Amino acid sequence: MDDFSFGTLATTAQRLARLRLERSGITHLNRIEPRDPEPGQPVTVWTTVGANLLADRVTLYYTLDGSEPQGSRGHATVGSALALEPVGENWDLLDWNYTTRWRTVIPAQSDGTKLTYKIGAWSRRGVDETFADNQAGASQLATRFAYHVDSYRAPDWIWDAAIYHLFVDRFYPGDGKKFLDAPNPREFCGGTLRGVIDKLGYLSDLGVNCVWLSPFFASSSYHGYDTVDYLKVEPRLGTNQDFFELVRRAHECGIRVLIDFVPNHTSNEHPHFAAAQSDQTSPFYEWYTFHQWPHEYAKFFTSGTLPQVNLEHAEARRWMIDAARYWLEVAGADGYRLDYADGPSHNFWVDFRRATRAVAPACFTVGELVEAADVVRSYEGRLDGSLDFMFLDVLRRFFAYESLDAAQFDEFLVRHDAYFGRDFVRPTFLDNHDMNRMLWVLQNDSARLRLAATCQFTLPQPPIVYYGTEVGMSQGYGIRDPLGFGDAEARRTMWWDERQDRELWSFYQQLFRLRQKHPALRRGERISLYADALTNVMVYALAHAGDQCIVALNNSAEPHEVTIPLEALSLHDGSILTNEFDSSQTRVESGALSLRLAPRAAVVLSADEARDAIPVIH
Amino acid sequence: MDDFSFGTLATTAQRLARLRLERSGITHLNRIEPRDPEPGQPVTVWTTVGANLLADRVTLYYTLDGSEPQGSRGHATVGSALALEPVGENWDLLDWNYTTRWRTVIPAQSDGTKLTYKIGAWSRRGVDETFADNQAGASQLATRFAYHVDSYRAPDWIWDAAIYHLFVDRFYPGDGKKFLDAPNPREFCGGTLRGVIDKLGYLSDLGVNCVWLSPFFASSSYHGYDTVDYLKVEPRLGTNQDFFELVRRAHECGIRVLIDFVPNHTSNEHPHFAAAQSDQTSPFYEWYTFHQWPHEYAKFFTSGTLPQVNLEHAEARRWMIDAARYWLEVAGADGYRLDYADGPSHNFWVDFRRATRAVAPACFTVGELVEAADVVRSYEGRLDGSLDFMFLDVLRRFFAYESLDAAQFDEFLVRHDAYFGRDFVRPTFLDNHDMNRMLWVLQNDSARLRLAATCQFTLPQPPIVYYGTEVGMSQGYGIRDPLGFGDAEARRTMWWDERQDRELWSFYQQLFRLRQKHPALRRGERISLYADALTNVMVYALAHAGDQCIVALNNSAEPHEVTIPLEALSLHDGSILTNEFDSSQTRVESGALSLRLAPRAAVVLSADEARDAIPVIH
Repeated sequence: MDDFSFGTLATTAQRLARLRLERSGITHLNRIEPRDPEPGQPVTVWTTVGANLLADRVTLYYTLDGSEPQGSRGHATVGSALALEPVGENWDLLDWNYTTRWRTVIPAQSDGTKLTYKIGAWSRRGVDETFADNQAGASQLATRFAYHVDSYRAPDWIWDAAIYHLFVDRFYPGDGKKFLDAPNPREFCGGTLRGVIDKLGYLSDLGVNCVWLSPFFASSSYHGYDTVDYLKVEPRLGTNQDFFELVRRAHECGIRVLIDFVPNHTSNEHPHFAAAQSDQTSPFYEWYTFHQWPHEYAKFFTSGTLPQVNLEHAEARRWMIDAARYWLEVAGADGYRLDYADGPSHNFWVDFRRATRAVAPACFTVGELVEAADVVRSYEGRLDGSLDFMFLDVLRRFFAYESLDAAQFDEFLVRHDAYFGRDFVRPTFLDNHDMNRMLWVLQNDSARLRLAATCQFTLPQPPIVYYGTEVGMSQGYGIRDPLGFGDAEARRTMWWDERQDRELWSFYQQLFRLRQKHPALRRGERISLYADALTNVMVYALAHAGDQCIVALNNSAEPHEVTIPLEALSLHDGSILTNEFDSSQTRVESGALSLRLAPRAAVVLSADEARDAIPVIH
Repeated sequence: MDDFSFGTLATTAQRLARLRLERSGITHLNRIEPRDPEPGQPVTVWTTVGANLLADRVTLYYTLDGSEPQGSRGHATVGSALALEPVGENWDLLDWNYTTRWRTVIPAQSDGTKLTYKIGAWSRRGVDETFADNQAGASQLATRFAYHVDSYRAPDWIWDAAIYHLFVDRFYPGDGKKFLDAPNPREFCGGTLRGVIDKLGYLSDLGVNCVWLSPFFASSSYHGYDTVDYLKVEPRLGTNQDFFELVRRAHECGIRVLIDFVPNHTSNEHPHFAAAQSDQTSPFYEWYTFHQWPHEYAKFFTSGTLPQVNLEHAEARRWMIDAARYWLEVAGADGYRLDYADGPSHNFWVDFRRATRAVAPACFTVGELVEAADVVRSYEGRLDGSLDFMFLDVLRRFFAYESLDAAQFDEFLVRHDAYFGRDFVRPTFLDNHDMNRMLWVLQNDSARLRLAATCQFTLPQPPIVYYGTEVGMSQGYGIRDPLGFGDAEARRTMWWDERQDRELWSFYQQLFRLRQKHPALRRGERISLYADALTNVMVYALAHAGDQCIVALNNSAEPHEVTIPLEALSLHDGSILTNEFDSSQTRVESGALSLRLAPRAAVVLSADEARDAIPVIH
């Protein structure tokens, strides 16, 4: 499959390696219950000791004031110590050995407490203390875990958001200008923040109420993921004043603004890194992690141009968080899309969220977490949400690759929704800048794109549309095709001319409007009504505050006629349902709904309560 | 490694396949809590539904009278139905999908109840009901699970047992006769039950108080694992009367007798199978499982000569259990070593144990379960115990292959003991008839054999000695060496002549006596005192009813001097410990014990409480 598919966990070998790592040494993996502790709630903490670690004692050291807990072999020197109790042996088939689970309960704390903790396993016989989770080898330090006791919720507005994700350099140069001539798409193409301002009307017409801008801080690359200055707009994209104006003008249009922020690493051209690399006595030396100075250092995977910031260093952390506060406070931005959010520790995110909330209580923080579900879930209480890569994967397998049938897709959605906390926001997307565009994957069949998009827009998570999707932008080559320009193939300049598929644009506009019209779609829970493996038809309903919608999707090349029992809904015989796309009407009869669905057809039906209250005469 | 190592679960690929099977469809795997229900205890039942099964309802159907529970889609037609509740979604990294755990509680029942149950997963939407655990494909029937409510315990005598495991055809021809001349070791060699009777004095001298005889029922093979008549002794080995006499005479010598019984399969020469294979209308047709009559049928792995008996068929089950009852009732045998005990269902073992207990309350049933620990543990309450293949594996890795160090070996023992219920008997062995003899694996170094045997005899599980080990029998070839006779290499005729290593024999006699002398070794719990990865020295203590032993093992080719803190024991400074092997004495000083251990040396020290009560003057 020439596509993005779960990065570092795509193969069985990678998953096995991860499984083994999770059973090796002492692991905590930020597993606490409740996952997002509120004031007055005790917190249960678990850890697992693998067969390779000979420990008969496990201690949790913690502080309540944000300081680093200190202690060894059961005795705290800074903060308090709690003994964990062994809960029992588990047999691990894969490792062919035992693992032991240990547990303790941290007492309830008051609102606003940051609880910092470490977990050490040791042996009365003198074996050295080993701290969780050092087996990953990411840090020489014992991992300092943390959670924050609060009543934070994701801001209410995010549940009404319909997000547009754009690449600043690729969206619009502004002022009637054209993109730069014949550019290599790995070079700057001329899009600017002013261009975005110029197109706020376009976005507003489409129905967008939130925009996610690709990184626009000083950087030498067109994509901006290698920051050189976190406090300055890249001059080729505009000025800080441009961004301030963009936010102000967007807010006037009812559009919120999310910034793409990269705390995990800087550019190697960042002055701090340059200082650290040229001088070991530089104050910035410790802001990075040199395995062997000056050329061996922690980095984003294998990318030497992206040195990892040591966010466990107090000053480096403060500096990074201050940058994030700046754009909220000074520019009035509405939140952050956080690049590679599984790079920095959970402890960092605790501080990040607290600090950003303090200056912008309605700020939204969403992580890029290309991870297994249990890892993603561990960010509850640390971030407001996570971009839903798991949904993306399953959605593509159903609508594009057809390696999942409708029953399997439906079952996944049921389990996926049940797995996560209701407050954790999981924005959905069909594609983004790191993968092939969905339309290209669908072999440029826009009927199939419309079907997938209807599904996306009728599920109760904020949808994200990647720029150009709404006008039929596709690719020349796959991002892994050696003939193409790699991921730049999916980041081509926006079509503003006759290449636009206006019919598709109108359909997308209809989807945005549909979502705004129906609270059921934004705030309802999905009720699965029908999902059939043979026909690949699925039907579900959503209801909220008196509003009800029924969505039927025929993901097959054949027409199908289906009868859907409606006992789960508050509809009675004679209720009339209106098709939101063509205003045709359907009547509920014998407690069921009969639908004819053309190939690849999507139908969204809404019930009009007021009309249904009038008795219907047959 | 040219050795027996966990049969069908030796490779990562095999373990992965098993893991995937356990996450596929609906699985119960006999997981209940408590594992061995007593009268008045409610029983929690778990099941897992994998992502590939689209079920939103799970029902447990059960009966209390041994009849087959019947029902579908939540309604019982025979017996009762209980709805299971979903406990939550789990993320399965390996399958990259969700599994759901379901749970219910079966009410407490009275003593003697056999509770039979099935678990069905279904969907309100009409998906067919799927019953656990059919994914293994072993049977077309839904698995009928069962547990028995009782207060059964393993018979008390087994904790004092030291077992000798002999191959009847290879042990002794009797009456001064010789083994048959120049035999191919895959043919009969002439050993008989009379020969065993003749050697009861030998066994008694050695210190044996329990003998496990290889299968001696009518069979065309020397090993007897392919039964042709369960009620008749193989004529080449003797007569039923010989066996009756053997039991009587053994009991006079204080030796109990365990029969090796093979319920999973018969020989293809068994008249029942012959009848089933020649006539589809035969009453025995259903006693086997024909996939395609007459040549495709369920069998022991791929062995066509060993057709599997359909023990889910009521009459076949009764017939098999009646045979087991016969030898207990008529001959007075003391129990069964049960071949391939993971072949028949747990439900079968419930009936087997109840029926055998009814005629012989002190009967011992021990399974051959070459399985993962969680599977072995699921037989608690169904069998009295299991031959400890996991211990064997670890013991060989420590003492023979040296791929484990002393600290790892010690840690395994701690966790292994913690994992299993205290009442579940796990007899230990260094080797058996299906693997290379331990002495051969140790390159015929009897010092290393003595060390491993001392460990075996000083742990609180009944030790089993494979015939000939005590006189130094080894092999010419490995059992997988193409030049040899396969597993027959480990089943050579017993040495009764000058080949015997009498020094080793005396050492083994000492081990048997040591174990009988010290209740601590038979009934104590192991207390780990010291285990060092570098020196490979390990020291542990056992205590029971005022008796205390300390065991020190130096599993290295170097001498070592160690100082062992004894705070875990009730010894005080000045206590004198006596070496059981050479009567030398050691004194406890400064709360510790200093020991010099020669290479591969084993020391067993005992504390004499009476003497220690006398104040010692320094």
